[in-house]
Amino acid sequence: MSKKQKNTIKSYSVAKGNKREKKQESEVNYQEVNWPKASIDNLHPADAADKLEDLPLEKQKEFILSQPIEISAESIAEMERHERIALMSTLPPALAADLLEEMSPDDATDILSELDPDVRAKILKKLEKEDAVRIKDLLKFDPDTAGGVMNTEILVLDRNLTVDQAIQLIRSNAGEIEIPYYAYIVDEFRHLIGVLSLRDLLLSLPARTLKDLLQEQQQHLIFVTYDQDKEEVARLLGRYDLLAIPVVDYDMRLLGIVTADDVIDIIQEEASEDMQTMVGAGSDETLSTPWVYSVKKRLPWLIINVFNSAISAYVVHLFEGSIAQMAILAVLMPIVANQAGNTGQQSLAVMIRQLALEPFDPRKFWSAVLREAKIALVNGCVVALCVYSGVYFWTHNFHLALVMGLALLLDMILGAVAGASIPLILKALGRDPAQASTIFLTTLTDSGGFFTFLGLASWLLLR
Amino acid sequence: MSKKQKNTIKSYSVAKGNKREKKQESEVNYQEVNWPKASIDNLHPADAADKLEDLPLEKQKEFILSQPIEISAESIAEMERHERIALMSTLPPALAADLLEEMSPDDATDILSELDPDVRAKILKKLEKEDAVRIKDLLKFDPDTAGGVMNTEILVLDRNLTVDQAIQLIRSNAGEIEIPYYAYIVDEFRHLIGVLSLRDLLLSLPARTLKDLLQEQQQHLIFVTYDQDKEEVARLLGRYDLLAIPVVDYDMRLLGIVTADDVIDIIQEEASEDMQTMVGAGSDETLSTPWVYSVKKRLPWLIINVFNSAISAYVVHLFEGSIAQMAILAVLMPIVANQAGNTGQQSLAVMIRQLALEPFDPRKFWSAVLREAKIALVNGCVVALCVYSGVYFWTHNFHLALVMGLALLLDMILGAVAGASIPLILKALGRDPAQASTIFLTTLTDSGGFFTFLGLASWLLLR
Repeated sequence: MSKKQKNTIKSYSVAKGNKREKKQESEVNYQEVNWPKASIDNLHPADAADKLEDLPLEKQKEFILSQPIEISAESIAEMERHERIALMSTLPPALAADLLEEMSPDDATDILSELDPDVRAKILKKLEKEDAVRIKDLLKFDPDTAGGVMNTEILVLDRNLTVDQAIQLIRSNAGEIEIPYYAYIVDEFRHLIGVLSLRDLLLSLPARTLKDLLQEQQQHLIFVTYDQDKEEVARLLGRYDLLAIPVVDYDMRLLGIVTADDVIDIIQEEASEDMQTMVGAGSDETLSTPWVYSVKKRLPWLIINVFNSAISAYVVHLFEGSIAQMAILAVLMPIVANQAGNTGQQSLAVMIRQLALEPFDPRKFWSAVLREAKIALVNGCVVALCVYSGVYFWTHNFHLALVMGLALLLDMILGAVAGASIPLILKALGRDPAQASTIFLTTLTDSGGFFTFLGLASWLLLR
Repeated sequence: MSKKQKNTIKSYSVAKGNKREKKQESEVNYQEVNWPKASIDNLHPADAADKLEDLPLEKQKEFILSQPIEISAESIAEMERHERIALMSTLPPALAADLLEEMSPDDATDILSELDPDVRAKILKKLEKEDAVRIKDLLKFDPDTAGGVMNTEILVLDRNLTVDQAIQLIRSNAGEIEIPYYAYIVDEFRHLIGVLSLRDLLLSLPARTLKDLLQEQQQHLIFVTYDQDKEEVARLLGRYDLLAIPVVDYDMRLLGIVTADDVIDIIQEEASEDMQTMVGAGSDETLSTPWVYSVKKRLPWLIINVFNSAISAYVVHLFEGSIAQMAILAVLMPIVANQAGNTGQQSLAVMIRQLALEPFDPRKFWSAVLREAKIALVNGCVVALCVYSGVYFWTHNFHLALVMGLALLLDMILGAVAGASIPLILKALGRDPAQASTIFLTTLTDSGGFFTFLGLASWLLLR
C-alpha cells in the first residue's frame, strides 16, 4: 500500500522501503549514504543507544552510518536527552531528516521539539512534505499532554466493515503499523465509537459487522482528550490495565493512541521528577547529565534554602540570651528539628506518591492530613517519652526534660501536618506538588522546633 | 476446547462457563449464589474496587454478590492490599475459592500469599484440583521475582506448525487466553526458541512454518529466568519497549510471561517504595492504610533517628563551652547543617532514581560520586560566598564569616559525597539502596556540619 491511499484504513506510517529509494534519486544535498542492511548481528536499538552515549560526539556519526538506518534512527530515539540534542544538532540537516523519517512520528516530534529553533527549521525543510506536515501538526500539542505523547500510526476501521474484511485489511496493512493489537472503530466522520482487539476479531464470525460486535461487547470505552495531562493518561492506562489508550478531540474524533511502553517511560520520568524536584535537583538529571547543567538546576534552590534557613537562624537569634545562659539548649535543639523534619518527610513522601498514583480528590486528600496528624501524635508521644527519659537521665533536670519532650511532640505534629499539606497547597496553587517541598518543610520544622523548644525553655526554665 | 486438551496449544486458563455450572451441581457447602450477568451497566472492575474500598466490611460481601462473578473477582484483585486481606479473610472459603478461580492465576496466587496460612489452607481445599495445583506451583516462586509475578495463561505454538495452522489454533483458543498479542514458539521439549506477534503471523504466507519465520526475523530473543528480580524484569521490558517478556527456567523451558500492565504496577510500587522507605515510612503505605500500620512502620525509624540525632547533639555538647562564650554560634550552626543536608539529598535522590532505572554498574556509579562532589564544590563555593557576605554584613566579624563559609563548603561536599555513596554502600551490602538513607545522611551532615563549624570557630575565634 502506498502512503497516499486514504480509504477505510488510514495508515500514517512512512512507507519506508520506497521512500528511501526515491530520496536517493531526488536528493544529492549530502553525500549519499550506503546504509548497511539489518541482520541478527546488529545491536538492538536500546543497546546501540548505550554504545552511542559512550562514544565521543565525532565518533557518534561514524557509528550511526555503520548501522542500518532503522536501527540508527531508533537508537537515537532511545538516547538520553542531552546526548541526543548534541548529536542531532551536529548532523547535516538532510541526514537528520532521513533519520527522523524512520522514527515514529511521536519520537521524531519529541526530538525536533528539543532542538534549537534554527536547527529545527533547517531539518523540517529537508523532511518529505507529508512527514513535515504531520510533525508540524504534532509540534502544536503541549509535550506534557496526551497529544504531545500520542502515536499517530494507528489502525482505524470503519464500523460497517465485516470481520472478514477487517482481517483482510489488517493483513494487507500490518507492515505499516507499529502495534496493531487494538483496532479502533470509527463512524464516517472518524468519530471513535469503539475498540476491538485482534482477539475479538479472530473470535468472531467472518460475516458479522464491526458495529454488531461492538454492540455485543458492552464495553466501557476508555479514552482521553488530546489536552489531558500525560500523567493522567498514564494513570488511566495503568488503572484499566490497557495496552493502549485512544486520544480524541472534543468532537470524539480519533487523533492517535498512547501505548503502554510510552506510559512506562512517562511513569519513570514522573517518579524521577518527583523524587528529584522534591529536594531541588533537576527533574531530568541522570548520572550522565553534564555537571554544569546540574549546578544550574540545583543552585537556585540551595540559595533559596539559605534564605529559608536564615529564618530558622533568626528564631534561634531571638533566644540568644537564653542560650548564653544555658548552652545545653543549643545541644538539644537540633534533635527537635531533626526529628520533626523526619516525621514531616514521611508524611510528605506518602502524600506525593499518592498524588502520583491517584486522581486528586480534595476531600479525600485533605482528610488524609488528619490521618498523618494522628500517626504523628502517637509516634510523637513515644519518641517524646524516650527523649524525655534520655534527657532526664543525662541532666537530672526534670523541667528541661519536660520542655524537650513537649517541644518534640508539638514539632512532630507540626511536621506531619506541614509535610502532608505542602504538596496539597502546591497542587491547589497549580504548581508541581513535589517541587522543593522538602526545602519548605524543613524551614517550617526547623523554625517551629527552635521556637517551641527555646520558647518553652525560656518561659519555664529561665524566668 | 476443554481445559484437559494438551496438544500444541497449551492454554492454562480456566474454562469458566463450564466450570461454574459443574460446581453448582457438585457443591452445596455454601448457599448457592445467583451471580448476575455482565452488562454495560456494570462497573469496570477498577471502579468497582474503589467502590468496594469505600464500603464497610459487612457491606462489601453484599456488593460482591450484586456484581457478575468475573467483575467481582477482578475488582477484588484490584483492591488495595490491606482492604483485600480483610475482605478475603471474612468470606466463606468456598465463595473465596470461586472468586479466585475467576482470576488470572498470578492474581489469585498474590492474594493467597497475603492471607493467613490457616485461611489460605481452607481456601486451597475448596479450589478445583487443577487450579489448586497450579496455584501451589506459583506459590513456590518468590513474589519479588519474575516467577512470582508471571502470568501462565499464554499462547504456546510448536515450531513445526504452519502459519495457517497457527492462526486456526489461535482462533479456536482465543477465548481462553488473556493477551494473545505475542505467540511463543517452542520446540518439542517446550524450550523457548522465539516469539512471533500476531502481526508477524498475519503478514506471512499461510503455508510457511513458524520455524522458517523465526529464521528470517533475525530477532533478538529477550527473556528472563524465573528467579530474576521483578524490578530487573520491569527494567528490561521498559528498555526494549515490549508488551510482554517471557519467563523461562534454566533449561530455557517456557514458564510464563510478564506483561506491560504488570510492569506498570511493579514500577509504581518500586517508586513508592523508594520514596517512602528513604525517609523511613512503610514501603506500601497509602492514604487508606490503617494508621496503626503506619505507626508500626515509621516508629522504629524515628527511634533510630533519635539515636542518630543524639550523635549530632553530642558533637554540639563537645563545644558547649564555646557556645556559652558565643551564643551566635548556636544561631548559625543550623544553617550549615540544613544546607549540607539539602545538598546531600539532591545527590541521594539522583542516585536512587538511577539505581531504579539502570542496571548497577559499580564503575559507572562510583565515578558518579565524583560528579556529585564536583557539583557540590561549585554550588558550595557560591553558597559559602553568599553566606559569608550575609554573616559579615550582619555581624561585621570577618573571622566568624570566614569560619561559616568554610564550614558550609566542607559540609556541603561531605553531604554530596555521603548522599551519593549511601545508596551504593547499602546496595553493596545487599540492602535496599533507599532504606532510611535520608536518616543516615542527615546524621552525617548534622554531625559533620556542627563539628567543622564549632571546631573551626573554637580554634580560630576563641583561642
